[in-house]
Amino acid sequence: MTSERLAGWVDEMGAIGGRPSGGVTRVAWSPELAAANEWLLTRARALGLKAAVDAAGNVVCQWTGSAPKESAVVIGSHLDTVPDGGRYDGALGVLSGLEALHRLKEHGFAPRRPLWLVAFNDEEGTRYDASMFGSRAFTGADLSHLLDRVDSAGVPLREAMRRAGSDPADLPGCARIGQVGCYLELHIEQGARLEQAAQAVAVVSKIVGMRGYVVTLRGKPNHAGTTPTDLRRDALAGAARVVLALRDAARATNGLTTNVGRIEIRPGGANVIPGFARFTVDARAPDAEGIERADELVHQAVVKVSADEGLEHDIVETFTHPATQLDLGLREMLARHVAAAGAETLELVSGAGHDAMVLAAHVPAAMLFVPSRAGVSHAPDEYTSPTFYEPALTVLVETIMELAG
Amino acid sequence: MTSERLAGWVDEMGAIGGRPSGGVTRVAWSPELAAANEWLLTRARALGLKAAVDAAGNVVCQWTGSAPKESAVVIGSHLDTVPDGGRYDGALGVLSGLEALHRLKEHGFAPRRPLWLVAFNDEEGTRYDASMFGSRAFTGADLSHLLDRVDSAGVPLREAMRRAGSDPADLPGCARIGQVGCYLELHIEQGARLEQAAQAVAVVSKIVGMRGYVVTLRGKPNHAGTTPTDLRRDALAGAARVVLALRDAARATNGLTTNVGRIEIRPGGANVIPGFARFTVDARAPDAEGIERADELVHQAVVKVSADEGLEHDIVETFTHPATQLDLGLREMLARHVAAAGAETLELVSGAGHDAMVLAAHVPAAMLFVPSRAGVSHAPDEYTSPTFYEPALTVLVETIMELAG
Repeated sequence: MTSERLAGWVDEMGAIGGRPSGGVTRVAWSPELAAANEWLLTRARALGLKAAVDAAGNVVCQWTGSAPKESAVVIGSHLDTVPDGGRYDGALGVLSGLEALHRLKEHGFAPRRPLWLVAFNDEEGTRYDASMFGSRAFTGADLSHLLDRVDSAGVPLREAMRRAGSDPADLPGCARIGQVGCYLELHIEQGARLEQAAQAVAVVSKIVGMRGYVVTLRGKPNHAGTTPTDLRRDALAGAARVVLALRDAARATNGLTTNVGRIEIRPGGANVIPGFARFTVDARAPDAEGIERADELVHQAVVKVSADEGLEHDIVETFTHPATQLDLGLREMLARHVAAAGAETLELVSGAGHDAMVLAAHVPAAMLFVPSRAGVSHAPDEYTSPTFYEPALTVLVETIMELAG
Repeated sequence: MTSERLAGWVDEMGAIGGRPSGGVTRVAWSPELAAANEWLLTRARALGLKAAVDAAGNVVCQWTGSAPKESAVVIGSHLDTVPDGGRYDGALGVLSGLEALHRLKEHGFAPRRPLWLVAFNDEEGTRYDASMFGSRAFTGADLSHLLDRVDSAGVPLREAMRRAGSDPADLPGCARIGQVGCYLELHIEQGARLEQAAQAVAVVSKIVGMRGYVVTLRGKPNHAGTTPTDLRRDALAGAARVVLALRDAARATNGLTTNVGRIEIRPGGANVIPGFARFTVDARAPDAEGIERADELVHQAVVKVSADEGLEHDIVETFTHPATQLDLGLREMLARHVAAAGAETLELVSGAGHDAMVLAAHVPAAMLFVPSRAGVSHAPDEYTSPTFYEPALTVLVETIMELAG
């Protein structure tokens, strides 16, 4: 048994929303993501699973066990990507789950408990700053406050959902966490620690906390040639100072990371002083105190720069995901199968957010990491060699058999 | 005789491309600018002028004099605006010219020399970083190297021209400078010096030199949560440092102004480190040495920041307009009519570029400034009271009579 089939699927999936760079763009509610979902539905049904897309855009594939009233063992990850992202982030977890179910069928395995494979929608949150949208809906969170958010083209989320064939009124019906017993997710590390340790698999101990913001600075548009420098109220100069202040804060604070990944300035004439700047801030820290400290640093930077530069400011928190401990029992079970597979047992903290952290608030959840070449992720040259995900696949199959058998 | 008619036209023109902010957006080759041109054609023809739009998008309105072989007296300015700009920048000069021609007709004035009113296209250069496009074509400049430039939506200039009904191959035929004897332009000051001096009109002595750039920085997109700060190659952090370095340079250098008015970063995910940043730089100085110094400062800042941040850089110069002395004879004539109108004679240097500087390289050219309330321009609250443009109108009418009579 090899992972050639899985490597082929990685190629097939990477072509959906594939770009000339070699990267992939499949954002939430896009035709590209719909095509990826369709690919999964077709493969899951061919395997004899019941499969459908729910109103939150999650693809839920169900293998009914011999004890269908028992709680389900759920394997999941996501098929959405960041813009021009990699082929492995999310997709490898979903496709590994599919490969695991194939191997179980081929073994003649008959699950007692229901066994589900779920591709959660919009893990990345690229389009509406609403990351983990699908897993939040799956766990019964009320997401109605997000529906009026607009994307960069001005399309409200509720309208994007309708265009993709989803009725926002049906979101409450996506809550299935009550039927779930535990959750497993295989994911690329998106860092270089496995590579540096020359290991092919790690068990994730915890996921850092993260908080997102949209910051708006308002100054005064004016003529770039006739307005004296000291009379300018330049929103881009203010944004530039905040970008650098947050970087300095992250460098000075152990465990803190920050990023400004999106910025828009207006009015947008080369000869006009920018009167408006709006940008995202992504802040992460390993615990609740760290997130509170990050929150202070973001507010301090924006308030100070706005005062210095004569700008009005507005800081909107777009999401918070608390730091999450993964389930000790599941971690021990995974570690046992890692050892049985002949690999070293390595535990890592995840600096990236995952659907597992949303599930972990409700049911025992755990994760396996596989290596990312050179630690690169969210970029076209993201890569994990099939050699390096085979051990994790074995662990996944064995763990599912122990949980569902 | 009052300027009520002119004030009414300012309102009518301000409604074309008008925005909820009270500002106006009429960029080159847009339907909004076409509507403004159509408005002018209709008014000019109603006044008995021959009027047409040339292939460069200039509206040329001609009053044939009794000596049609003599060189023309040209009154001009522009109808295009920056995004969400004001109602006066450019438009007031064109509409004042139209008002002056009306008054001359009402006086029964019969010009000896041809008298033209021209609304030059794309003075602002918002869409293609090709400012003074229309006046450059009018003076016979070869603009074919600009035709493949694309706007932010990826539309090449040659295609935008075709959509607007212009054939790029006809650009050479727009060169009419050989028939022109002199050029006059009335414009808002876009600064606060007239207001501070409590004067309603000034004669412009010179126009500063200006140079434009598009700077591209390339780093490495990566995951915002898992990439250590010191391993990042963040193109936005680099751009932020350049924005602030250029501002520092302008503050430290007498007469230098700089502006970054447009920026684009990619890939654009909140949780992705920006691997790409592209932004405009507008630099101005009162003489050629100042422009060369500005050029050094721009290159130094970009090179240093790129080296520090591990970024690749690319600096493309998009335009240079040399500092321009306006014609001494015309300035003296305007000053005489300013004094005759009972106003004080004030001379000002223009920190803004104008079509007059393109014309001035070929024929005697001069400008009148009228006040900008609070010095505001390129913004919705740009405003000049009719009380404040009436004296300049009188000067314009008298000067035309002296030149063309």
